[in-house]
Amino acid sequence: MKLNIALLAGDGIGPEVVNEAVKVSDAIAKKFNHEISWTPALTGACAIDAVGVPYPDETHDICMKADAVLFGAIGHPKYDNDPSAPVRPEQGLLLMRKKLGLFANVRPTFTFPSLIDNSPLKRERIEGTDLVFLRELTGGIYFGEKGRKDGGETAFDNCVYTRAEVQRLAKKGFELAMTRSKKLCCVDKANVLETSRLWRETVQAMEKDYPEVTVSYEFVDAVAMRLVQWPNSYDVLITENLFGDILTDEASVISGSMGLMPSASVGEHTSLYEPIHGSYPQATGLNIANPLATVLSAAMMFEDAFGLKAEAEAIRAVVNKSLEQGVVTEDLVANGAKSYSTSEVGDWLVANL
Amino acid sequence: MKLNIALLAGDGIGPEVVNEAVKVSDAIAKKFNHEISWTPALTGACAIDAVGVPYPDETHDICMKADAVLFGAIGHPKYDNDPSAPVRPEQGLLLMRKKLGLFANVRPTFTFPSLIDNSPLKRERIEGTDLVFLRELTGGIYFGEKGRKDGGETAFDNCVYTRAEVQRLAKKGFELAMTRSKKLCCVDKANVLETSRLWRETVQAMEKDYPEVTVSYEFVDAVAMRLVQWPNSYDVLITENLFGDILTDEASVISGSMGLMPSASVGEHTSLYEPIHGSYPQATGLNIANPLATVLSAAMMFEDAFGLKAEAEAIRAVVNKSLEQGVVTEDLVANGAKSYSTSEVGDWLVANL
Ligand SMILES: CC(C)[C@H](C(=O)O)[C@@H](O)C(=O)O
Ligand SMILES: CC(C)[C@H](C(=O)O)[C@@H](O)C(=O)O
Repeated sequence: MKLNIALLAGDGIGPEVVNEAVKVSDAIAKKFNHEISWTPALTGACAIDAVGVPYPDETHDICMKADAVLFGAIGHPKYDNDPSAPVRPEQGLLLMRKKLGLFANVRPTFTFPSLIDNSPLKRERIEGTDLVFLRELTGGIYFGEKGRKDGGETAFDNCVYTRAEVQRLAKKGFELAMTRSKKLCCVDKANVLETSRLWRETVQAMEKDYPEVTVSYEFVDAVAMRLVQWPNSYDVLITENLFGDILTDEASVISGSMGLMPSASVGEHTSLYEPIHGSYPQATGLNIANPLATVLSAAMMFEDAFGLKAEAEAIRAVVNKSLEQGVVTEDLVANGAKSYSTSEVGDWLVANL
Repeated sequence: MKLNIALLAGDGIGPEVVNEAVKVSDAIAKKFNHEISWTPALTGACAIDAVGVPYPDETHDICMKADAVLFGAIGHPKYDNDPSAPVRPEQGLLLMRKKLGLFANVRPTFTFPSLIDNSPLKRERIEGTDLVFLRELTGGIYFGEKGRKDGGETAFDNCVYTRAEVQRLAKKGFELAMTRSKKLCCVDKANVLETSRLWRETVQAMEKDYPEVTVSYEFVDAVAMRLVQWPNSYDVLITENLFGDILTDEASVISGSMGLMPSASVGEHTSLYEPIHGSYPQATGLNIANPLATVLSAAMMFEDAFGLKAEAEAIRAVVNKSLEQGVVTEDLVANGAKSYSTSEVGDWLVANL
């Protein structure tokens, strides 16, 4: 099979971790007789530096022509202290999501037995956790009308959802639940927000099409609590953009394996795969960043974008092996123990595939 | 001193826990030579049942005339499955906040040494945690225009803030930080939302008036993570209404002492004190609910509404004693150990003041 993949390495440690995922993907392709063509493109702070905008049209064209996008991370500290600066890396991210129609952000949180003691939660709370958030990514308050009135003294952000947007996301949620334990949780704030009431009534109306799926409806504040108390009581959760932003990040730290969590953003035109960790500027160029989340994002890409399940499983298996054998970067080793560099971990994965 | 207090017991276990707080408050008043006049009033589901609305005008009048309000909890399961029902207990809560101008919700999260092992977090993560959220309570997306368009197919909720609203809340935050460790964290989403940019620029402009306070600005998703990872790295946090709803609930479960957490809603006309736990319908009438959060809310009331610090400290001391000696309700005892009823705990507190 010919796999045509856009490669958006981005900023900070992005290029380093993406590099290892490319090595592993190429090795898998060779083993299973596929041919990958990678097309690199600029996004984020590096794109601002090079061409003045964080998501250039050329990058967009490359993504539109690709079968899938592998993404590193974006962001640079020089933009951190002024969130109202006219051009910022995050704007590129939002523009990319909107223009590529990446409406469903798939964010699994699961545990690795060998890493469970890294969790801030007690073992008995976190053991067995295996949940997936589907966060709506192209609507809501992120993209509604926003601005100032009264000479700048009043600010507003409008949150808007259409029934069709909710249906599109919820459909993916029901379908995903059918492949798992058939439990779906719709997270909203329907006791206060009209958009949440639209979410809830839309999902309620879809229940009859998926009679095997048990749906629960929970308020976002209650979910923020239960994620810490009993994370393993959840399976698939669907929610709107802003709630998803907050809850997926909360969920990511409970496992103790945040540095290993992959994600996908599923779109109308193409889908994008990226580690959930950020650009980690302090580590840039030091060859110490953990590449496993990006490698596991590539595994998601093989499985979901190309239907290549055996290839994905082979990648996951070798990642597990590296964890078991302690061939990991310094963030995953207890004090004093031997650690490996970013590229050494990548090399080891390739050699042990 | 004469203390004129409105008593809004509400629904579920509200009346039972409020009853014990009244007993303890009366005993303290006697000891310190104050005279409390309690004026009961209806709110919540019980008000809907009695007079058809969740926050009757008569209740509002009583609150307006009072020096402080002691509140139990509201909510009843018969309203749980239909968040768009025309009359709901929560509407009373929102109306009460708005009409009483309760603009600052003060939500401490702290640990009790004897309860630390109840936390879902590991001991070393939670030990020493002592933080306070100030949540803006009468603005934002809760109270902006909301509705439907396109024949019901599109829903919207507008989030609005004025500079004056932000200043009012932030001022309380700076003042509170001055009485504590002089660290203030402003939680926003200024990389996406215009209202958050207004929050951030307003707080930034106030920094010069409080040169001793160190202010940090963090995105809401990052705070949702750090609350689980390093809760004791925070001191005072200020944030808008919806972020506060989610984050204060998240924070409440990390301590392991959720059933003990008090809160205050500070207003223009009066202030309201309530336990953060809800109406816990399953326990209604069983005399098993934990009254300590309400008792500690009464302590906050003595200190903040009336400036009676010694009285507040006396209440906190006897609560600590009950915890140390294990005179607690069943939610706080390990399996098998002896527990006490709601009223027995209250009686013990009164006897040991
Ligand atoms: C950088 C920011 C705009 C972005 C978001 O809020 O969506 C990030 O937090 C994320 O979750 O991908
Ligand atoms: C019941 C609900 C409207 C309320 C809120 O969202 O403010 C509650 O969750 C709270 O935090 O007091």
